[in-house]
Amino acid sequence: MNQFDNETRLQANGEGAFSGQVHPDWNIGTNPNGGYLLSLAMTALRAQAPQHPDPLSVTVHFLRPGLAGQPCRVEAPVLRTGRTLTTGRATLIQDGSARLEVLAALGDLGAGGEPVLALPAPTIPPPDECTVRSGDQQGVDLPLMSRLDIRLHPDEARAGSVGRAQVTGWIRFRDGRPPDTLAALLFADAFPPSVFGLLGMVGWVPTVELTVHVRRRPAPGWMLGQFRTHDLVDGRMIEDGALWDSQGRLVLQCRQLALVRQPDPKA
Amino acid sequence: MNQFDNETRLQANGEGAFSGQVHPDWNIGTNPNGGYLLSLAMTALRAQAPQHPDPLSVTVHFLRPGLAGQPCRVEAPVLRTGRTLTTGRATLIQDGSARLEVLAALGDLGAGGEPVLALPAPTIPPPDECTVRSGDQQGVDLPLMSRLDIRLHPDEARAGSVGRAQVTGWIRFRDGRPPDTLAALLFADAFPPSVFGLLGMVGWVPTVELTVHVRRRPAPGWMLGQFRTHDLVDGRMIEDGALWDSQGRLVLQCRQLALVRQPDPKA
Repeated sequence: MNQFDNETRLQANGEGAFSGQVHPDWNIGTNPNGGYLLSLAMTALRAQAPQHPDPLSVTVHFLRPGLAGQPCRVEAPVLRTGRTLTTGRATLIQDGSARLEVLAALGDLGAGGEPVLALPAPTIPPPDECTVRSGDQQGVDLPLMSRLDIRLHPDEARAGSVGRAQVTGWIRFRDGRPPDTLAALLFADAFPPSVFGLLGMVGWVPTVELTVHVRRRPAPGWMLGQFRTHDLVDGRMIEDGALWDSQGRLVLQCRQLALVRQPDPKA
Repeated sequence: MNQFDNETRLQANGEGAFSGQVHPDWNIGTNPNGGYLLSLAMTALRAQAPQHPDPLSVTVHFLRPGLAGQPCRVEAPVLRTGRTLTTGRATLIQDGSARLEVLAALGDLGAGGEPVLALPAPTIPPPDECTVRSGDQQGVDLPLMSRLDIRLHPDEARAGSVGRAQVTGWIRFRDGRPPDTLAALLFADAFPPSVFGLLGMVGWVPTVELTVHVRRRPAPGWMLGQFRTHDLVDGRMIEDGALWDSQGRLVLQCRQLALVRQPDPKA
């Protein structure tokens, strides 16, 4: 079994309750990556709706940091299920406290028709000419990079290098597992913060809330991501992102509210 | 008391439970407007967190149409409260069934500092040179227009007129109530669907989920809204919107997943 499926495995305990383990190999610094915790929570909700395997709209609020290497429980009640949609909640709990609260709609993206309108993929150098994401770029350890291969546009890989809040790059699993709509949620939260290219070293940029809209099942191979911030005020930023598959098809759009410790202009 | 505050009034029944009435004057056709129902649900959650009066991130899933002219209950549990944020849920229930499920973070936008980055407001003709939103444009009655004054860019006010999925216009309360961050949630869901200008008459475009990020308390006066769709596939669209206040300041960004009955290309 591949690493992602193995390390998001849950045991069903009945009545929408599940139990599992938060593996430390998906950490950013000492905290589990938010996208990984979201994948755990969505694995539970997906098990509740086998006829609707694809997350269409997923909102997660990060209430408290997760605990790496510790067990977790997920409670995933279904709120409504119909012909085309299942809507449900998922709460990920560790050490007696809720860490994540999720509200999501799932459906079936098997049709994969021709888009009437679609965001075009940006053009960037191929993965071999991009810069591997490293902890040095942000001043934190990245155990996550033992699981994910992330390559950043060479012009955007140095802190404060581009003068705008934009990060573009490639992403795939290290062990060759092909992407799917569950993995895409993880990929939506695995790039460095886009303000990195504008403000320089920003340290931890805690996400308050992330919403992902999945639009299509991805083709095998690398996925391409682009993340940008056009809205930063009073230490709160809105970051917009999108991911495309190896055929250049739009797979998801995402947006998050995050906190930024802005450099003191008087310093 | 003004119409909006009067018609979103709730009675607190203790333990996060509230009761009220869904007034029929906020309808689109025979269904209560989603933004109005959201305002009712958020009125409850806001009452749970008096130190955090401003919605910062609000996600609502529309589970079933509301029932105009009928009583409602709202259950609004707080999930976590801290120094800067309160996170909670709100469920609006009518006739024994959940109609709306909300997950939201509230805070205090009193600081209102200078933005580091902000989306610029579009330039459009003044309200007097714009076209009043009318039911004729969409083939539905709009009781909502007894409560809201909405003026659309004259070039975008006719179905199929612009060849792109964009709607821009002005909005304010008819009775002169100044906008605030709660009303802004309503204003985010009160314009015609942006696909109207691309596809022509589209009838009802049901929203599956709407997420609003409020960025600033609005100044008094008209607010300006712009809504665009760049992503439509298999009858599902992502619509992006933003609202600015009378001083041209960005007040919110929003995004929704909605269903579009696309015209049959063979018809």
